[in-house]
Amino acid sequence: MNINKNYKNLNENYLFSTVKNKVREFAEKNPDKEVIMLGIGDVTLPLCPAVIEALHSAVDEMSKKETFKGYGPEQGYDFLKNAINEYYLTRNVKLDLNEIFISDGAKSDLGNILDLLGTDNTVLIPDPVYPAYVDTNTMDGRKIVYIDATEENDFLPLPDFSQKCDIIYICSPNNPTGAVYNREQLKKWVEYALQNNALILFDSAYESFIDTDDLPNSIYEIENARKCAVEICSFSKTAGFTGTRCGYTVIPKDLVFDGLSLNKMWLRRQTTKYNGVPYIVQKAAAAVFSKEGQKQIKENLNYYKQNAKIIADTLDKLNIKYTGGKYSPYIWLKCPNNISSWDFFDLLLNKIAIVGTPGAGFGKNGENYFRVTSFNTREKTAEAMERLYNLFK
Amino acid sequence: MNINKNYKNLNENYLFSTVKNKVREFAEKNPDKEVIMLGIGDVTLPLCPAVIEALHSAVDEMSKKETFKGYGPEQGYDFLKNAINEYYLTRNVKLDLNEIFISDGAKSDLGNILDLLGTDNTVLIPDPVYPAYVDTNTMDGRKIVYIDATEENDFLPLPDFSQKCDIIYICSPNNPTGAVYNREQLKKWVEYALQNNALILFDSAYESFIDTDDLPNSIYEIENARKCAVEICSFSKTAGFTGTRCGYTVIPKDLVFDGLSLNKMWLRRQTTKYNGVPYIVQKAAAAVFSKEGQKQIKENLNYYKQNAKIIADTLDKLNIKYTGGKYSPYIWLKCPNNISSWDFFDLLLNKIAIVGTPGAGFGKNGENYFRVTSFNTREKTAEAMERLYNLFK
Repeated sequence: MNINKNYKNLNENYLFSTVKNKVREFAEKNPDKEVIMLGIGDVTLPLCPAVIEALHSAVDEMSKKETFKGYGPEQGYDFLKNAINEYYLTRNVKLDLNEIFISDGAKSDLGNILDLLGTDNTVLIPDPVYPAYVDTNTMDGRKIVYIDATEENDFLPLPDFSQKCDIIYICSPNNPTGAVYNREQLKKWVEYALQNNALILFDSAYESFIDTDDLPNSIYEIENARKCAVEICSFSKTAGFTGTRCGYTVIPKDLVFDGLSLNKMWLRRQTTKYNGVPYIVQKAAAAVFSKEGQKQIKENLNYYKQNAKIIADTLDKLNIKYTGGKYSPYIWLKCPNNISSWDFFDLLLNKIAIVGTPGAGFGKNGENYFRVTSFNTREKTAEAMERLYNLFK
Repeated sequence: MNINKNYKNLNENYLFSTVKNKVREFAEKNPDKEVIMLGIGDVTLPLCPAVIEALHSAVDEMSKKETFKGYGPEQGYDFLKNAINEYYLTRNVKLDLNEIFISDGAKSDLGNILDLLGTDNTVLIPDPVYPAYVDTNTMDGRKIVYIDATEENDFLPLPDFSQKCDIIYICSPNNPTGAVYNREQLKKWVEYALQNNALILFDSAYESFIDTDDLPNSIYEIENARKCAVEICSFSKTAGFTGTRCGYTVIPKDLVFDGLSLNKMWLRRQTTKYNGVPYIVQKAAAAVFSKEGQKQIKENLNYYKQNAKIIADTLDKLNIKYTGGKYSPYIWLKCPNNISSWDFFDLLLNKIAIVGTPGAGFGKNGENYFRVTSFNTREKTAEAMERLYNLFK
C-alpha cells in the first residue's frame, strides 16, 4: 500500500507548541506572576441564551419518537438555510437555497472543497496566512505561489495581472492581520479571477466583526463574484460556536469549470463523504438569526471589539504601528525597534508576563510582527495594556 | 481552474430516487392502501434517556462562562476516548488512547481516510456493497477490483491469495447482506493483507448487533490485525445517533507504510481539515457507555432485532432463502422464482404495498436479491410479514 507521498512535504509548525513550552517554563520559574494570554484564538464568552434555549428544545425533540430526527439532508435543513438566505438578503445578496451548504465549520470546508479541484492548479496565497491554506494544498501536491501582505499595501495585497494562478485565497477580515478589503479592492480580485478563469476561496469567518456599511461582509456584494467565488463562513466567532461546530459554504450555480458545476460536485462530495451537522446544532445555529439571538451575539461581539479598542488605543498612545482591531478580533502590530517576532515574544513574556503570537508563525512577512487577540476578559485585557504601556512609554 | 476530472467517472445512483418515485406514484393511485416501508436504513427509536440527560447537562455547561467549552481537541475529548477504550477492553482489545479518533460518523471517516492513501493503489471491494466505498475511490481515481459475495460463499468472500491488491474493504456485519465474518474467516483476511502489505478498512458500524461471543465485534480480536487494519465505527445504529452524528476510528500505531505512520498522518489530516465533534455530542456519546446507557441502548437494539426475527421467521416458513437478520438490522433475501430485484420490488409494492430495496442498487450480485430492514415499528413489521406470508404461502 502506497501512502499519499505529499504528506512528506508538510512542514511541522512548532509555533503553538513552542509558545506553550515557553509559557510553562516562565510560569514555573515565576509562580508569583500572573500571566495574561493575548494569544487566544478562541472565544471565551458562553453561548447566548437564545442558542441555549434552542439547544434544550431540540434535545427534547430528540427524546420523543414523534419528534426524533434521524438522518437529515447532508447539505443542511431548510430552516437554517432559509435563515442564512435572509441574512444575505439584508445585504442585497440573493442566493438560491441550494447554493447554501451547512457545514461543521469553515476549517472542514476549506479543506474538503479541495477534493473538487485538480491537483495541477496553481494556488495563490497571501503571506502572512492562516497556515491551513498552505497545508491542505501541500497535502494534495498543488503548486503554491505567495503574494506579500505588507505595510506598503496596508496588508491588503491586490492582484498582479501578469501573474497566472487558478485558485486564490482571500480572508477578509484577515487572520492574522485583521485587515479588511473594501469593495473597490475586492472588485479588482473578482476582475482578476474572471480574467484568469480562476476560483476565489473567500474565507469570511470574521465577517460579523464588520459593522459598517462601508465595507463588504460578503464577496457576493461585488458584481460578478457569483461567477468566480466560493464563500466559506462560520458561526465560530460570530456566535461562539468554536466548540459547538457549525458553519456554511456558498457555492453559486454560476461556477462551472470544464463543463462541471462546482455546486453539483460539492453536493455529490457531501452526500458521499458526509452526513450533515447534528440536528440540535442546526437548531442552535438558526436561533442565532432570531431577533433575540442577533441582539445577544452583537453584545458579545461588542465585548470583544471593546477589548480590541483598548488594545488599539494603547498602541496608538505608544506610537506602535498596527493593523486590524477595528473590524476584527485580531491586532497585528509591528514589533517596536524592528526586533524579531520571537524576540518580542520573549520580551513581553519575561518583562510583563504577557503572551501573544509571534508573526513568524504565519509566514515570512510576519518576521517582525506580532498578533494579539481581543478574546480575553475586559479586566485582563486592560491590565495587559497597562503593563504594555508602562513598559514602552 | 481545472476541476478534479475523476468526478466525471462517477455513476449516478438512481436507486433511492427511483424507489421514492415509484412509491409516490403507487400511493397517489391507491390512497386507501397503507404502504409499509421496509427499506428504511435509519433508526426510528428516539435517543435513550441517559443520552438525553447528558445532552441537557452539557448544554447547561455551554451556557456558563466557567464551564463553557470552545475549541476541543480535534481528535476528541479524553473522557469519550477513555469510554471507548474500556469498551474495547471488554473484548480484550488493548488500544492506546492516541489510537482512537472521535469523528462525526463512519461515512465521513471512510471517505476522508482516503486522503492519506496514494491514488496508485488497487482497491478490493466486495459486491454487493455500500455504494460509498466505490464512489469515494472513484473520486480519487483509484483502480477498483471486485470480489463476489454470493450464495456459494454465504456472502462472506475469502481472499484469493493470487490476487494483488492494496486496500481492502470489509464491512461486518455487512450492509447490505447482514452476513457476519467469524474469527477464522477474518484471520484469513489479516493473513492476506499482511502478505500483500495491504491495508484493511474495517467498517464495524453494525457491530453492536452482535451479541454472541462466537463472532468478533472488532477486527482487533484477530491477532496481528493491528499491523494491517483501520477500524471505523459509529454510534448511528448503536445508539440512534443518525441525526446526532458521532463515531470513532481506530488507527493503530503499528500501521507504518513507506516510513510514515498512518496514525500520525491522520492526526495531521484532522488537525488541518477538521475541528472535532461538538462537545455536547461527545458528552452524549460518552453517556452511551454508562451503565444506564448500555442497558437502554440494548433495549432499543433488541427491539430492532425482534423485528428482524419476525421477518426471518416468516421467510423461513415461506422457504425464501436469506442471509442476515440475526446479528444485523438487514435481511438480504433471494427473490422467489429467481425474478429480478426490480420485478420483486414492483410485485411487493403493487400486490401488498410493501417497500424494500432492490439488490441491484448494491452491485451486480444483487440482481436477484432484495434488502429489507428491521427499523420500522413492531406493529408494522408484523403486519408487513403477514401480508408477505399470505402472498407467497
